[in-house]
Amino acid sequence: AQTAQLQMRPPRRGSAVVAPRAEGINPSIRKEETKVVDTVQVAELAKPLTAYCRCWRSGTFPLCDGTHVKHNKATGDNVGPLLVKKE
Amino acid sequence: AQTAQLQMRPPRRGSAVVAPRAEGINPSIRKEETKVVDTVQVAELAKPLTAYCRCWRSGTFPLCDGTHVKHNKATGDNVGPLLVKKE
Ligand code: FES
Ligand code: FES
Repeated sequence: AQTAQLQMRPPRRGSAVVAPRAEGINPSIRKEETKVVDTVQVAELAKPLTAYCRCWRSGTFPLCDGTHVKHNKATGDNVGPLLVKKE
Repeated sequence: AQTAQLQMRPPRRGSAVVAPRAEGINPSIRKEETKVVDTVQVAELAKPLTAYCRCWRSGTFPLCDGTHVKHNKATGDNVGPLLVKKE
């Protein structure tokens, strides 16, 4: 999606320095939604510990499936999940 | 951080097509940590509803402070927090 955006944007004129456009962090999750918000009902948690994705690359989003490891390796990033602990 | 990485990487040789490197999504939060993982102890939640950041731009990370709105506007992204509900 980033590549497509860059290709569609014509180069700016009248400016010697072109500031790069800030980039999105969610490449593909629920892009039909304006804002992806999820709710955890604590009372409904099945397990003592549940991991929630913050890398926007999980195949089981909003849950973490470990894909952050691949993302971190590929980019040098350091993101990881939010753990919700019941007990 | 992205700009610095790109500047430090020499151009690839021997290949006509240079694939862009995948990009990190956390520009500045706890970059001294290999992986940023946070834990919510449900029993310690003070309020009925707590919002946790998934945009990696909150000034109160791991809590959401609403900065995702600015990020979404600037980039066309659609990210938002994880809400944890006690009742
Ligand atoms: S898969 Fe996204 S944080 Fe683990
Ligand atoms: S400030 Fe990051 S999701 Fe709200």
